[in-house]
This record gives sequence, structure tokens and C-alpha cells, in this order.
Amino acid sequence: MHDGILDVGVVGLGRLGKRHAENLAFRVPGAKLVAACSPSAEERAWAEGALGRPKVYADYPSLLAHPGLDAVFLVTPNTVHPEQIVAGLKAGKHVFCEKPLSLELDECLAVEAEAKRHPKLKVMIGYVRRFDASYQDAQARIARGDIGRPFLVRSQTCDMNDPSGFFVRFAPKSGGIFLDMSVHDIDLARWLLGSPAPRRVFSVGTIAVHAGLAECGDVDNGVAICEFAGGAMATIYASRTMAHGHETATEIVGTAGRIVVGRDGRANEVEVADAHGIRTMTVPTFWERFEPAFLRETIHFVDCVRHDRPPGLTLHDATEATRIAIALRDSLVGRRAVDL
Amino acid sequence: MHDGILDVGVVGLGRLGKRHAENLAFRVPGAKLVAACSPSAEERAWAEGALGRPKVYADYPSLLAHPGLDAVFLVTPNTVHPEQIVAGLKAGKHVFCEKPLSLELDECLAVEAEAKRHPKLKVMIGYVRRFDASYQDAQARIARGDIGRPFLVRSQTCDMNDPSGFFVRFAPKSGGIFLDMSVHDIDLARWLLGSPAPRRVFSVGTIAVHAGLAECGDVDNGVAICEFAGGAMATIYASRTMAHGHETATEIVGTAGRIVVGRDGRANEVEVADAHGIRTMTVPTFWERFEPAFLRETIHFVDCVRHDRPPGLTLHDATEATRIAIALRDSLVGRRAVDL
Amino acid sequence: MHDGILDVGVVGLGRLGKRHAENLAFRVPGAKLVAACSPSAEERAWAEGALGRPKVYADYPSLLAHPGLDAVFLVTPNTVHPEQIVAGLKAGKHVFCEKPLSLELDECLAVEAEAKRHPKLKVMIGYVRRFDASYQDAQARIARGDIGRPFLVRSQTCDMNDPSGFFVRFAPKSGGIFLDMSVHDIDLARWLLGSPAPRRVFSVGTIAVHAGLAECGDVDNGVAICEFAGGAMATIYASRTMAHGHETATEIVGTAGRIVVGRDGRANEVEVADAHGIRTMTVPTFWERFEPAFLRETIHFVDCVRHDRPPGLTLHDATEATRIAIALRDSLVGRRAVDL
Amino acid sequence: MHDGILDVGVVGLGRLGKRHAENLAFRVPGAKLVAACSPSAEERAWAEGALGRPKVYADYPSLLAHPGLDAVFLVTPNTVHPEQIVAGLKAGKHVFCEKPLSLELDECLAVEAEAKRHPKLKVMIGYVRRFDASYQDAQARIARGDIGRPFLVRSQTCDMNDPSGFFVRFAPKSGGIFLDMSVHDIDLARWLLGSPAPRRVFSVGTIAVHAGLAECGDVDNGVAICEFAGGAMATIYASRTMAHGHETATEIVGTAGRIVVGRDGRANEVEVADAHGIRTMTVPTFWERFEPAFLRETIHFVDCVRHDRPPGLTLHDATEATRIAIALRDSLVGRRAVDL
Repeated sequence: MHDGILDVGVVGLGRLGKRHAENLAFRVPGAKLVAACSPSAEERAWAEGALGRPKVYADYPSLLAHPGLDAVFLVTPNTVHPEQIVAGLKAGKHVFCEKPLSLELDECLAVEAEAKRHPKLKVMIGYVRRFDASYQDAQARIARGDIGRPFLVRSQTCDMNDPSGFFVRFAPKSGGIFLDMSVHDIDLARWLLGSPAPRRVFSVGTIAVHAGLAECGDVDNGVAICEFAGGAMATIYASRTMAHGHETATEIVGTAGRIVVGRDGRANEVEVADAHGIRTMTVPTFWERFEPAFLRETIHFVDCVRHDRPPGLTLHDATEATRIAIALRDSLVGRRAVDL
Repeated sequence: MHDGILDVGVVGLGRLGKRHAENLAFRVPGAKLVAACSPSAEERAWAEGALGRPKVYADYPSLLAHPGLDAVFLVTPNTVHPEQIVAGLKAGKHVFCEKPLSLELDECLAVEAEAKRHPKLKVMIGYVRRFDASYQDAQARIARGDIGRPFLVRSQTCDMNDPSGFFVRFAPKSGGIFLDMSVHDIDLARWLLGSPAPRRVFSVGTIAVHAGLAECGDVDNGVAICEFAGGAMATIYASRTMAHGHETATEIVGTAGRIVVGRDGRANEVEVADAHGIRTMTVPTFWERFEPAFLRETIHFVDCVRHDRPPGLTLHDATEATRIAIALRDSLVGRRAVDL
Repeated sequence: MHDGILDVGVVGLGRLGKRHAENLAFRVPGAKLVAACSPSAEERAWAEGALGRPKVYADYPSLLAHPGLDAVFLVTPNTVHPEQIVAGLKAGKHVFCEKPLSLELDECLAVEAEAKRHPKLKVMIGYVRRFDASYQDAQARIARGDIGRPFLVRSQTCDMNDPSGFFVRFAPKSGGIFLDMSVHDIDLARWLLGSPAPRRVFSVGTIAVHAGLAECGDVDNGVAICEFAGGAMATIYASRTMAHGHETATEIVGTAGRIVVGRDGRANEVEVADAHGIRTMTVPTFWERFEPAFLRETIHFVDCVRHDRPPGLTLHDATEATRIAIALRDSLVGRRAVDL
Repeated sequence: MHDGILDVGVVGLGRLGKRHAENLAFRVPGAKLVAACSPSAEERAWAEGALGRPKVYADYPSLLAHPGLDAVFLVTPNTVHPEQIVAGLKAGKHVFCEKPLSLELDECLAVEAEAKRHPKLKVMIGYVRRFDASYQDAQARIARGDIGRPFLVRSQTCDMNDPSGFFVRFAPKSGGIFLDMSVHDIDLARWLLGSPAPRRVFSVGTIAVHAGLAECGDVDNGVAICEFAGGAMATIYASRTMAHGHETATEIVGTAGRIVVGRDGRANEVEVADAHGIRTMTVPTFWERFEPAFLRETIHFVDCVRHDRPPGLTLHDATEATRIAIALRDSLVGRRAVDL
């Protein structure tokens, strides 16, 4: 870190990786995108043209060896997250990694253990919703007592249906609907409720549209309850089959009021009245909803590294979200309540 | 009036007349529908079967001669309102008459003069919105100072388009869009602003859809401004060509807040999310929006008669609404501001 | 039943009983309120003055003996419903009974058995939401396929908090939050999903405000999941501690769309913008929300009796709602999933 | 312009100038902020520290002399816009200027004439709303015929009340409420209606709160109607006294539907339900509402210059908005309709 500017490398240049790369290249004060890596020649060619000329590598070890590199952003398949985080730490780099930390609890714990060995390095998993302006406003209101004591979170992550069922192909590696989608809601619930310990979960799911999911035991719609210590509760809904768009919404109920974040996922400020009724349009994907939050998240992480401050969420937060999501999957498969 | 029960006769059994008759027959405490009249044999046959057996007449004078009749409800064409009110008063009956009082100012004043000669008889023109629960809530909030001093009303009456243009045929007798539709908004503006004196108006209109209106100098969409004494203002919008339904809405702006009544005219509590977006449906006509208000209005009038209390709105209120609406029509035709 | 007019007696003149009585006395075509009974002298005195002079009795057997009585409306404490229904049937009366049928499954089944012995008598339990115009609109849309195949219902019944905790006193006899409140949501879920068989439930609850509930094992906020045969699911939320009003809302998710009924429970068409933001008010109790539905429900039942048609919901529907609600209570107490 | 990168200088470093400067310094691809000027030493000091080290000048002529400067952004007091645009053009610079072009029609025309002498230079006045994503979505829907033929625009610019009345001091130089605020709405109306020629206007205003405005003949709330050739109409509302926040909203009515942009001006995706009702918060100023549009506008202008394309709005558009706003002021003062 020379002159306080962080030299960053992006690992993975898929759809989301490209966006992180562009943010780091052009929009994050105090960061410089100096390196990028991808196994895809096409993606590397894109990186050379579109990102202000970082050094481009074909593999992660080469990128880690980039001279003067301070930090890596891992935007890679879920399954390699743990080993890549550990490798980054061992190479002395700060690590930002897209969620989830891992689909396996022991891997989460192993990463936590490794991170403890590098107390000067920052590690953060990208639970992007914590950096959304509306969720932050809600959290601030709760923290200052506006709704009394919060005791219930009802949260949903609902994706617009892809009639091609493209995602079914990736289902076997996704960890299932709760690990893939609901970890976000679980993390929000923990954050908004003050990080209570989970006690017991129950989940149910159904295949509403994509019969192909049956093969790997997954569902395209699932609901769940999580009971926490101290009387707090969360209910969760995950869907891959919405007709009208992507809708991430969260309701927090307290003893003196209620807050809802993101109801109806409006695409913009336009309302149309015609023969179909009075209607608003919904964002098609999470990206349109959370684009500014991805940038805020990156700015936050870079700031934490530059000023040696702890990031807003810890590896343990990520482990806990994974732990609860695994229990939800176990409940779905085992058709019973699961204790934690 | 025996045992405090009011014997009522309904005059006119068209669409709205039928509804008033049903209310009076079955839903108004303290009233008894004893008579009805219509020049239409079909409507008289309906009345005999559907209203609990009132005496049915073919003309107004015969109905007025019904023994023991206390009050008449006039739901007849606009043009006969003044003479029928006067005849009712001269026969010693309380008179409820659908709006408007008249399309001519001198007739309004003549009716007012006649009413003064019968101080024991109640006369009320049916400005039904004053009896809508939401408008009454708004008025109560304003009256207790919730929005400070109210100084601007923005009000609209927008009908769903009838592609057949059926109404064009009746346009010549309607008095034009402002006298036919906007009198409601004018009356609301006066009521909500504390009945200030009108000073100056300006209006503009256009034929958006129904070319046939050109013949009688009318328009299917009109906008207007009314300036009142003391700095209060109103803007008005009237339309006969809405695509999505009937929408009556009124905004009242005060020095400490703003109230909106009826925005979007929701048909019910249902919201649909599908490929068209997230949408609500709108009431098709004023009837679905104001059905309960028509009943409340009738109950109010019957109560006023039974307990000898002045009705919530006076003949003078009706005259003022007509006077302003006539000025709006003059402005539309004369293409200039009109002083009052 | 003379001239096709149904002679009805109301049993129970508490808050809701009074309202049923007024509806029957003045607003239900084809019905005549001829009798009413209450153990309370005060309520009997009210009935004599306010209901158009029905015959008033101090006990149910006397009312049942009223000459020519066709039907009874039971608006009495939950615990006496089964015996009173049976007594009514045995006396040859049609029976409308406020929900729930019973808090005990065997009693439900016993009533069903008795009813089968009187095939000419109509019996209906008052699940009033099925008669709400918005719920009926939603159901009609679903029935005609607007949202594809419905597979998930998310429903809530949330009451405004009563800081006095008055209801805590009645908690021991209420059957608990799920039997007292969520039966409505369960019935809606069954209706909107096409009456699938329940398979498994899970519930969790907490005492957010009213510590006194602990004594009888009840909670003031509860959430639940119900899994049905064929892949349908329901989630339920019941609360007695809302800060802003009563909010009954239901979401139905299908393969081609989603419908929400009653979100935010708006009291009327008024929106206020001031220093608190832009806001709408919420109905204080279920009554303001469902007042017209109570009338429609009564009109429906009277019509069914008069024209010998089966009511829109059967005793078996009521039994099923009770059966599921009991399982929810068992799950809450037993802290485990319960199979049905 | 070397390597296709535009060297830009910002003129004026007040509140809005600072924001334009930051956008140009950090967020606009293809632009480089090389110079800035302000008469204020404090603002110059800020510019030196916060903008990536541009050359800082104390006056406009010095900045114009900056070697290699391609374009200027004028964020200066209204009164100097015309002379500064002309000076920029004469110095061979592309010119972006904040609205309004001028408060005097002859000055507008003089600037247009000068611009015609420099056909290779781009000039654009910053009507920022044309670059808001929601307004652009609305315009695109209208352009493709979604609402049939648009014939009415109803638009408002309402600022939150500043109880200190700070703005009253600047009122004499503002041109009055319509020239200061409503030019935005006028420009939107022209854009969304297809730039029809104005025919006649009428306006009325009142002082609701800030008595000090009387001195310079201004008002703090005004309403207006503008009639265009071909039957199109616009109504306008401008207010400086809103209690709940800044609310820019525009409704466009067509023969087959209606679009509303920006109703209620929500600050974010948070909804609070508590003892005050169910409520959303509103943006406090235009900046929170239009921050992304200011950036898009700048990116658009820089793109137009770099690729020699005509900007989305012309000087003539700005002249027309001024011409109509002047007529509105004349109508307010003259208390009569004004022909154009």
C-alpha cells in the first residue's frame, strides 16, 4: 500500500466478477485495480480492454504473486472459496470473498482458524445487503429503538423465473435453495435481531416449476422458520419462480413498530395506469436492486483495510449463516425440525 | 311523519334513482319508501316488485298528492330540477335533489328564494362526496388543524372511457364538462377551504377522443384554476377518457401538511403481481367508489328532517358550485380568464 | 318460513352478537329477527330497544321454543358452540355459528355427525373472510387460473396491541393464539389452495409484550408452517401486539403470478403527508376491516336456507381448520414438527 | 482533446458546483477535470484538496485561458449565464451550463445566435430531469405509444419548507417562482408532449408562509395552466412550503393510459409502521432525488462532445422553457391569461 492506495486483484471475471472489477477500476476511492485473473481467454481479453489496463493472469497463484498486491477480491465458484481465501491469507493478502464462505461447516471453521493466524489481514464475505442504503437505514432505526425490541424477522429472496431452467444445471453444486439464496436472509435476520444464537429450525419446500431439481433433492420454492435464543424468530421464503421480477424484502417486527424493507422491489419511480390496472415494474434481477450496495460494500472493505478497522461483518457471521442454512437443508431433507 | 318515521317518495327510477329507492326502501332507519314515480312503464313495474310495495305513479304531481307524504327524492334529468324542487316545496314536502341544482344561475337563485319561503322544510342537493367516509375524515383533520391553514385544493373527476361514446349524445344537455363533472370538485374545494369567495377562473380543454363533442362546443378533458379571496386556490381536472377506471381524487395542501383522498381509486384490497408488473385494479365507475356515501347521504338527510336540523350543505353551496362551474365554461368558450 | 321470509333468533348479544343482530334486524333481505337471547339483563334491554322489537329471552332453550323460529345465529363463547349447535339441530333449526366450531377435535366430529342426521338443515361456521369482497375477488382470479397453479399461501392475522392486556384474562379459554386467531388463516389457505390434505406442521412462538400469557402456555406472537399433500404449503403469522392497527393480509403464490389481499389494512382512502412522512392509517380492529363481509356472510347463509342451497363452506372445512390449529398448538408446546 | 479524453474546467464551486466537479473528477469516463475556478478562496482551497489536483483559478477568463481546455461547466449565478456561455463559445470551448439559460428572453436568443456561429461547439443547458432514469423510462414508453397520444402533462416541483426563509433573500434575483422552479416542469411537459408550440398561459399564486416575498412580488406557491397548439395542455404546481420533503412528480395522460413519475418522492425502500400509521420517508431536497441524473447528464454531455453528436436537448428547448415561464410570471403579475 503506497500513498495509502490499495493495490487490488480481482479473481474471477464472470458476470459478477466483471462488475466488481469495474467498480474497483473506476469507482472506489483509495483502490487501484492492478491485476485480474480468469481461466477464460475471452474474459482476460475483456479485462485488458475494459479495466484501465491491469495485469491479467490465467490463474490465481500467478495473480497472488503480482508484485505489491495488497488485496484480492474472490468472485469465483462457491466450491473454491475456502481454499482461495486460505491461499490469499497465506500469501499475506487482505481478502474479500463473495458469499457464501463455504457450503460445509468444517471448511468455514478452518477458514476462521486460518484468519486468526493473520490478525493484521482483513477478511470479509460479501453479504451485500448489509451495505444497501435502505437496509442500513432500517438497521439504524432499529438500533436507536424506533420499533422497541425487535423479535421477528420475515425475509424473502425471490428470483424471477427463468423459463429455460438454466440454473437447474448448477443446482447440484449450489448447496440447495437455502444455502444458495436464504443465507442472505439468515444473515439479515441475525444482523437485525442483534446476532442471537439459533436454537431450532424447520423447513419445507416444493418443486413448483422445475421438475429437474428433483434429481438432486432440491426445490424451487422453500419456506422456513428459525427460532433463536431469547425468543427471537425468523421466517424465510426463497423462490426461483416469481412471474414479475426479483423481489428481496424483509420485515422486522418489534414491540413498538414494524419496518419493511424493499417491498415490491420497484424498478424505478414510474407508475403506469392502463387497461391492466395501475402498476409498477419490478427489478428483473438482484443486480438492479443492489448495484449501489455492491459499490458501497467494496468502498467499505477498502476503507477498513486502509484505516485498519474491522469490517462490518465478521467471518463468524458468515459461518453462522452457513450453519443455519445447512440445518434448513437438513430439515428439508429429513422432514423434521433440526436443533442447533 | 307518524311515529317519527318519514314517508318518502322517489321521483325518477333510472340507474341512480333505482339505487336511491333501494336505499330508502331497505337501509335507511327512520324512512319508509311509500311512493315512487316514473314515466316509464318498465321502471314502474320494477318498482312494484323490488321495493317492498310502494305506491307507484306515472307522474310527479300524482306522487306529490300521495296522502301523508313527507319528503321527495328527485333523481330526474338536470333540466327539471328547479321546477320540481319548487313544486315539492309548494306542496309542503322536504326535498332531496340530485346534483346539480340547475345549469342556470338565475334558476338557482329562484329556488333559493322559494326555499326561504318555507323555513320549516329541508332542501338539500346531493353532493355525495361530502358524505364519503374518507372525505369526511380529511375534512375533520383539516378542521382540527392537522395540516395548518389549507390554501390549495387540487381535485379531479376522471371517468373511464366509454369507447361507444354513448355520452356524446347527452352532451348538449349536460351543461358541458365543468358543469356536469367538476361541480363536485368545486364543491369539495369550497368545503375543504372553508367556503371562500371565488375571484377569478381560467380553464382550457381538449377533445382527446370523442370528436362528436365539437358540435356542442364541449371537450372530453378539461383543466381549470380557480382563485378565491384570501389567497386560496383550486385546480381542477375533468376527464371522460381514462383507460384504467374511474378516479376521483383530491389533494389539499396546507401550511403544515398535505392530505390526499382517493388516489388511484382502488377497487378493493387485491394486488396482483404477474408479467404485467405489480398492479391494483380501479373502480369502473363512481358508483363503486361512492356507494356507501350515497347511503350515508340519505341517512343524513332523513335524520336532518326527523330532528329538524340543518343539512350539512345548503342550497347556497349548490348555487356557488354552479356559479363557478358556469364561469369555467365561459372561460373555456371565451378563451380568457373570467372574473366573478 | 312463511312467504319465504326466514324467522331468525340471535343467541348472544355481546359486541359481535349485537352487530349480527342489527344486520339481521335491518339489512338482510328475506330474514326477520324475531327473537334474541342473552343472560345479561342489560343486553336484553338493549335488544328490546334497538332491534325492531324481537321477542327477548334469557336463555337458549326458551329461544329455541319461540314459535315458528327457523334459524339461530350463535354468537356465544367458544366453549358452548358444539352443544348449542347440536341443540339447535335437534330442535329443527338451521344454525349459523361464529367460528370456531370447537377447540376440541372430537367435538367437531360429533357436531358433523349430528348434522348428517339433519340433511335438510343448513349449518355454517362463520369464517367471515371467505365473504370479504377482496378475498372473493382473489379466489375467483385463482380459480380461473390467473396465477397458474397456486402452491403457497402466506397469511397473517395481526391485532393492534391492547396495552391493558385485557385479553390475557381470556387466554386460558381461547385455545391459544393459533386456535383463536390462525384458524382464519388456515381456512383461507385451504380454500385458496383447493382444500389439500394437511401433512405436517411446525410452529414457534414468543411472548413479546404480555408476560401474563406464560401462565397458560400461550404466546402473543407465533409463526407456523403447514405442509399439505401435493406440494402445497402455508406459512402463518399471528400477533396480538401490532403498534399501528389490525392487519389481516394474505399472499397467494402460483406458478404464473402472485396475489396479495389486504396488505397494510388501510382504514380509508386518506393519505397524510407531514413531518412524520407520507402515511396511511390502519383499521384499529377486524371489525372495521370486515364489517361488510359480516353482512355478506349473513345474507349468504339466509339465501342458502331460503333456496335450499349448500353454504359456501362446510362443517368439515371448520373441522379441518380446527384440526390443523390444534396441531400447531401441539407443535408450539412440544417444540417439534407434528404429523397429521 | 488528446486520446479522446476531454479536458474540462468547472466554473463555480458552490454546493451544486462542488458536486459537478466531483463527478467530472472521478466518475465520468472520457473526461478529465483539469481546471476549476471560484472567486472564493475557501472554495478554491477545497478544490485543490478534493478533486485530484486540477489547476485552480480565481476568475473565469483565467480558466478559459487554461492550455488545452476543451469544455467548461458553468455552475454560476443565473444572471451571468448568458455572458459566460458566450465568452466560452468565443474562446472555442464546448459549454455545459446549469439551468436556466437566462431570465430574459432576448438574452436567450442572443446566446442561440452566438451558438449558431460555432457549429462545431456543443452547448447544453442542464435540464437534469431529462436524464433521470425514471423520466427516461416514461419518455420511452410514451414514444413507443404505450399510452396512445399524450395530451396532458401535470407536473409539480415542490420543495420542503425552510422555516428560516433563507431563500427569501435571493427571491429578487430568482426571476420568481415560475422561472426558478417551474422551468423544469415546463421543459418536461414540452419534452413529453413532443415539443408543441405554446399558445396561452394563466397562473395564480399565493404567499402561504413567507410574507417577505411580497416585497418583490413573488409567491411561495403557484399554479398554472399552459395551452399548446394541437390541443395539448399542461398544469403546473410549484411550492416552497412542503412539510414532508421534496417532491417532484409528473403525470402524463394519453388517449390509452397514464404514466406517473416520482409520486411521493420516496427516500428509500423503507416503510415504517407505528403509532403514526404506515409511512414512508421523502427525500429532503432535489439532490437526493436526482443525484444519479446529474451524473448521467454529465456523462451524456461528455459523450456528445467526444463523438460529435447533438445533445439530447437544444438551446432552443431552453429558450422555450424560459419564454413560457416568463409568460407565467406576467400572468401572475397581470392577473390575466397571457397569449404567446
